[in-house]
Amino acid sequence: MNVRELRIPLGERSYPILIGAGLLAASETLAGLAQARQVAVVTNDTVGALFEARLALSLAGAARRISIRLPDGETHKNWQALDHIFEQLLRERFDRRCLLVALGGGVIGDVTGFAAAVYQRGVDFVQVPTTLLAQVDSSVGGKTAINHPLGKNMIGAFHQPKLVLADVDTLRTLPPRELSAGLAEMIKHGAIADPAYLGRLERDLAALRACDTTALGDAILRSCEIKAAVVAADERETGVRATLNFGHTFGHAIESGLGYGNWLHGEAVGAGMVMAADLSWRAGLVDDSLVERLRGTIAAAGLPVRGPAWPFERYVELMSIDKKARQGAPEFVLLERFGAARVQPVTDAQLRATLAACTG
Amino acid sequence: MNVRELRIPLGERSYPILIGAGLLAASETLAGLAQARQVAVVTNDTVGALFEARLALSLAGAARRISIRLPDGETHKNWQALDHIFEQLLRERFDRRCLLVALGGGVIGDVTGFAAAVYQRGVDFVQVPTTLLAQVDSSVGGKTAINHPLGKNMIGAFHQPKLVLADVDTLRTLPPRELSAGLAEMIKHGAIADPAYLGRLERDLAALRACDTTALGDAILRSCEIKAAVVAADERETGVRATLNFGHTFGHAIESGLGYGNWLHGEAVGAGMVMAADLSWRAGLVDDSLVERLRGTIAAAGLPVRGPAWPFERYVELMSIDKKARQGAPEFVLLERFGAARVQPVTDAQLRATLAACTG
Repeated sequence: MNVRELRIPLGERSYPILIGAGLLAASETLAGLAQARQVAVVTNDTVGALFEARLALSLAGAARRISIRLPDGETHKNWQALDHIFEQLLRERFDRRCLLVALGGGVIGDVTGFAAAVYQRGVDFVQVPTTLLAQVDSSVGGKTAINHPLGKNMIGAFHQPKLVLADVDTLRTLPPRELSAGLAEMIKHGAIADPAYLGRLERDLAALRACDTTALGDAILRSCEIKAAVVAADERETGVRATLNFGHTFGHAIESGLGYGNWLHGEAVGAGMVMAADLSWRAGLVDDSLVERLRGTIAAAGLPVRGPAWPFERYVELMSIDKKARQGAPEFVLLERFGAARVQPVTDAQLRATLAACTG
Repeated sequence: MNVRELRIPLGERSYPILIGAGLLAASETLAGLAQARQVAVVTNDTVGALFEARLALSLAGAARRISIRLPDGETHKNWQALDHIFEQLLRERFDRRCLLVALGGGVIGDVTGFAAAVYQRGVDFVQVPTTLLAQVDSSVGGKTAINHPLGKNMIGAFHQPKLVLADVDTLRTLPPRELSAGLAEMIKHGAIADPAYLGRLERDLAALRACDTTALGDAILRSCEIKAAVVAADERETGVRATLNFGHTFGHAIESGLGYGNWLHGEAVGAGMVMAADLSWRAGLVDDSLVERLRGTIAAAGLPVRGPAWPFERYVELMSIDKKARQGAPEFVLLERFGAARVQPVTDAQLRATLAACTG
């Protein structure tokens, strides 16, 4: 498999995404960025044991290289993890020209990216996502954040990486649940923006779940292209970018209500997309056949298609703290058809019906 | 005294600084920004008791207004204060379209500005500085930060306010030490960028220390103009903006070594400027008459002109953690003459001589 390159066009903050097999150990682009700089690789014990030695080969030219290990899991996407990074950087006297490298999944990427956004008011960082979800989701958009006890991703910044390295070899050791969680976001990209891509994903699901690197490389590239097109049109998330939150209002409520880390983010989004599609049908935007097709695709990807059995009020309470809420009256990203989504408020009755039909 | 207006030109992030007497209670610009929004006024008990009721008159059109009180002082410019803001905003369900208003000195402005930079990845904020230092220093530049136990201002962001309201009436209740601390930064502006302004400050020192609002209004405007010109040329602090740190490498070392809050920031910068001028002389850039004149002006402003009696090694240790350090070998902002400064490394011997001459 060749290296595929996608350039994210953001003026002086433009950066490349490189997708390929074996990139960790042999990236000239990363080597060039790290040359003669203070470099901190931020990872966790699991991912670090698997990949940090390989990555170190691309970082051989650094003036200094340190390793910072964070505890694993969404429950640790918090201030303590962030402060652990700051403390290591300050103890090692890293200055504002240093480079942070996030080696891991979405939690590592989000925390490290936010640390880079605010350490000495902003330093450079590189994303090396090692999960499918992170390769298609965190690679594009520059969103970084930590969770607050009162809400997910409530504290963060927009901070673009200098480079994203998506090495598909890292996906071979990924647990099947995590691979499915990545597929959820890819299905989302097809559903909201590209029916042909959705069709290809449906056709290739078995190959993707079997970790076929060519199928994965194609799909990762297409997902990054779709997300990049949306983000380039709306970097600060004031308009069309909100459609990327398809399935996420429900999904965040599920994650928040279960406690972060019980369902994977992609699993919650899987069920959330079915709920959002059902709501689109109840709002009169789509046929029920679309809902059924999406439900089937999500199930075939190995993802849940129903939310937890909570009362209506519990869901509403969990959703209203979500940052997509507008003055307490949540709007939803709904499908108009496969390939087109929009944000609109729904009635209380429509929301009740969807929750009754799609949970428990 | 009329309202003076200075516009900070930063493209789509441009904003006005309004300087005048009585602005708090009667700002149409602030009223327009607050109209129909969720507004949080962040202040401390001392400043809040003096001015929050007046400010509320300009915020009457807000959809909702809450007050968030932080503990007073530089020692509280930390994560706990930041998290207190986040917690109030989340409990009150403030969304990303809310407006934060920082009412207070530099600590309130820095913490509130940083909270605004990262709450839900960035919300609008207004600076209402109530100290002379904050009116001339924090009003321009978009720098926000909190301290870390291992270093001052180590965690922060560049985040521009939507408006700065500098009401000179608030300076009437300011303790004389705090007024002098503000004069330190103004003297700095004259020293590095405008000899005529330095001369006017020297001439008007008595009026300024007596809180003459016209003299203060003139000087605040000129200081903001100077800082704005430097910042506009170099928003991200990669080049000429570093000259604004004249006196600050020594000053931060003094603050850090004494424990934040023992000397005021402006007091530490006062002594730091004398040290930096002395170092400029030892580096062969200026005559000793310049050093003596600056020392006299700083003393006449009611500021210390000597650093604490610490050994050379203690100063070096305190300065090397400072973020102006480059790989452990600190550079200094030195004067070439009044009106021109530049960054350059100095020899160990020059630094030793300055510390021997200007401390204890």
